[in-house]
Amino acid sequence: MHRRLLCTFWPSIRALSTKVGWANRAIVYAQNGDPSKVLNVVEYPPLPPPLPYTVNIKYLLSPINPADVNVVEGVYPTRPISTDSLTPIGRGSKDDPVFVGGNEGLAEVTDIGDGIRGLKEGDWVIMVKQQAGTWSSARNVQMNDILKLPSAKSLTEVQAATITVNPSTAYNMLHDFIKLETGDWIVQNGANSAVGQAVIQIAASKGVKTLNFVRSRDTLEQLRAHLINLGATHVLTYDDLTRKAFREEIKSLTSGKEIQLCLNCVGGQETQLMVRLLGSDCHLVSYGAMSKQPLALPTSLFIFKNLKAHGFWQSRWYKERPRTEQEELMRKLTQLMLEGKLDAPDHEIITIPTTDSCEEASSRVRSIFKKLEKGRHGKKILLKLETGSRLL
Amino acid sequence: MHRRLLCTFWPSIRALSTKVGWANRAIVYAQNGDPSKVLNVVEYPPLPPPLPYTVNIKYLLSPINPADVNVVEGVYPTRPISTDSLTPIGRGSKDDPVFVGGNEGLAEVTDIGDGIRGLKEGDWVIMVKQQAGTWSSARNVQMNDILKLPSAKSLTEVQAATITVNPSTAYNMLHDFIKLETGDWIVQNGANSAVGQAVIQIAASKGVKTLNFVRSRDTLEQLRAHLINLGATHVLTYDDLTRKAFREEIKSLTSGKEIQLCLNCVGGQETQLMVRLLGSDCHLVSYGAMSKQPLALPTSLFIFKNLKAHGFWQSRWYKERPRTEQEELMRKLTQLMLEGKLDAPDHEIITIPTTDSCEEASSRVRSIFKKLEKGRHGKKILLKLETGSRLL
Repeated sequence: MHRRLLCTFWPSIRALSTKVGWANRAIVYAQNGDPSKVLNVVEYPPLPPPLPYTVNIKYLLSPINPADVNVVEGVYPTRPISTDSLTPIGRGSKDDPVFVGGNEGLAEVTDIGDGIRGLKEGDWVIMVKQQAGTWSSARNVQMNDILKLPSAKSLTEVQAATITVNPSTAYNMLHDFIKLETGDWIVQNGANSAVGQAVIQIAASKGVKTLNFVRSRDTLEQLRAHLINLGATHVLTYDDLTRKAFREEIKSLTSGKEIQLCLNCVGGQETQLMVRLLGSDCHLVSYGAMSKQPLALPTSLFIFKNLKAHGFWQSRWYKERPRTEQEELMRKLTQLMLEGKLDAPDHEIITIPTTDSCEEASSRVRSIFKKLEKGRHGKKILLKLETGSRLL
Repeated sequence: MHRRLLCTFWPSIRALSTKVGWANRAIVYAQNGDPSKVLNVVEYPPLPPPLPYTVNIKYLLSPINPADVNVVEGVYPTRPISTDSLTPIGRGSKDDPVFVGGNEGLAEVTDIGDGIRGLKEGDWVIMVKQQAGTWSSARNVQMNDILKLPSAKSLTEVQAATITVNPSTAYNMLHDFIKLETGDWIVQNGANSAVGQAVIQIAASKGVKTLNFVRSRDTLEQLRAHLINLGATHVLTYDDLTRKAFREEIKSLTSGKEIQLCLNCVGGQETQLMVRLLGSDCHLVSYGAMSKQPLALPTSLFIFKNLKAHGFWQSRWYKERPRTEQEELMRKLTQLMLEGKLDAPDHEIITIPTTDSCEEASSRVRSIFKKLEKGRHGKKILLKLETGSRLL
């Protein structure tokens, strides 16, 4: 019943809307759970003109990141809040809240409120507000929720839509913990993840060498060739870590230069073995735990080798850093992309067409998540919620 | 044969020495191994007058710390080097090196070389050089190896002899990672260790509250009373950590104030459970691993709660910090001791008398380590290598 309710307009709103308008849609959930079961596509009326100091935006492309699934499941430490622009007047959202999915996305400015400076209609913007609900077609946002992309339209939509999470994580992990110089080495696991691939490219652009660990697989040589092509110095497997002579081999690969930065998105036994390759005063930065095993490390590494273990969470970075730093980050990443040094991830764009009814759109969305559940999709999925005139 | 050799003087030295002199002795080992098997007491001739910029010192009291055992075993990352003052001329130490045990100790200045300022005969000094070989009676040392104790003789010999390792570790862990204010909370395990007891006292002197975890035991109430008497706010057991409602109980104990410093000398499961009590942006500082289990922590704590895991090693601290900071640390600890806010550890002084032959002294020393091996001694053992006139 809830679902049916969401897929219609509330009477008070219907009266306000025109007979023909933009089909604004959003992918929402009322309760946490399996995304392939709890997600629904709903429609909502055209946005009113923006209030002062706010802008209306139209989403062009919004990725599905692994963390988005955790948010819908309710196992992520942050969750979206329902926003005014999606809560029609009189709906009583307090008692019956609906959350819009999606954290990352590229949007175009469609309408500018009084008092806004440095932004014009047609500009491309990305979200710095976390859990902004990017799986929607149009939203009204505060100026502080967004960031204008510099030289934006020289980028592809995919590059721009995926810039705020993975390349940002990679860039900051390479810069926030130690000062890397040309010729320095770093080591990472999960090197074929979206972040891992960005790490390889950003490190290579600085002349920093990378030891990249991945799972062994039938297609290892293909993957190795791909990562080497991106700029990886060496691609190795977790199995290599169990070889007795491996530490000595690594010493010879790095000409004895100590490794002082280690990026981890795996955890478990592989990470424990990987950390043994590190030099003194090393920083281990974790941004994921794909093995679902805890990070177990010998205490002696902390005491005698002065290992420091940190976590990195791009959401916290956006919360803590001033706007000038956020802008600077985007300038740097955009520059790398324009210079051809930072590719968009392998991806697939899935369009939710206006010709779909809400029910059809909902089942299209749920089937995407059903496929994602089966794991190891390999390609980044981006959603395009088509907008267009539609008989209301 | 080796042992016999050590217990006599080498012919070239015998010629140099007088018939009656100070019986200089040291506890040494030629090879790493079980201290109760490899340690020997040897004699060596009176020290020559100190060279310029060096001083001769006489050890008054030298503790046996747990790490000293690891050094003798050869499983510690640092090891002593044989020094000139213990290597009689012509002995060929390069081919047949002997190491003197002991890292910490209190000594009295007996003779001052040219060029030394700010030090006079009779001053009390402690070692800042690591693995200085303090289980000996007299040594010649560089000015940089030692630190003069401020208002030294107002301290007891035991306070002064045990100041450089445990209270220093406690003090620095409480100051080097976060700025603690009156009313803040910290949590620690192994709270009845020598460092743990110093942590309790130093924290209490600053008005910082402590949650102290210890193993459950028959004498728990006695231990609790002792630690509370030192200034502990609460004394709890690792078993408490497994209770479901425990996190809520702690929240109520701390009135919801977030805990941002956690000191660990245990590792393993207990530490994993303890870390769940911590607030955001917390620092976990490890200085030991009594459980001999790795430090296993959920990666989510690093990523989402911004936990940072460090190690602390007082030896590194002395190596890295300038002399002014070392002196400042000693002033602060001495001050706390003089104000009655920092007690000496429970201890037992064992004298190695001059009336012992080298063989007798060696077997006395070995039996001490045999007892220590049996574990959980509870009291800090301090060695007094008696010096006196002795027929050579």
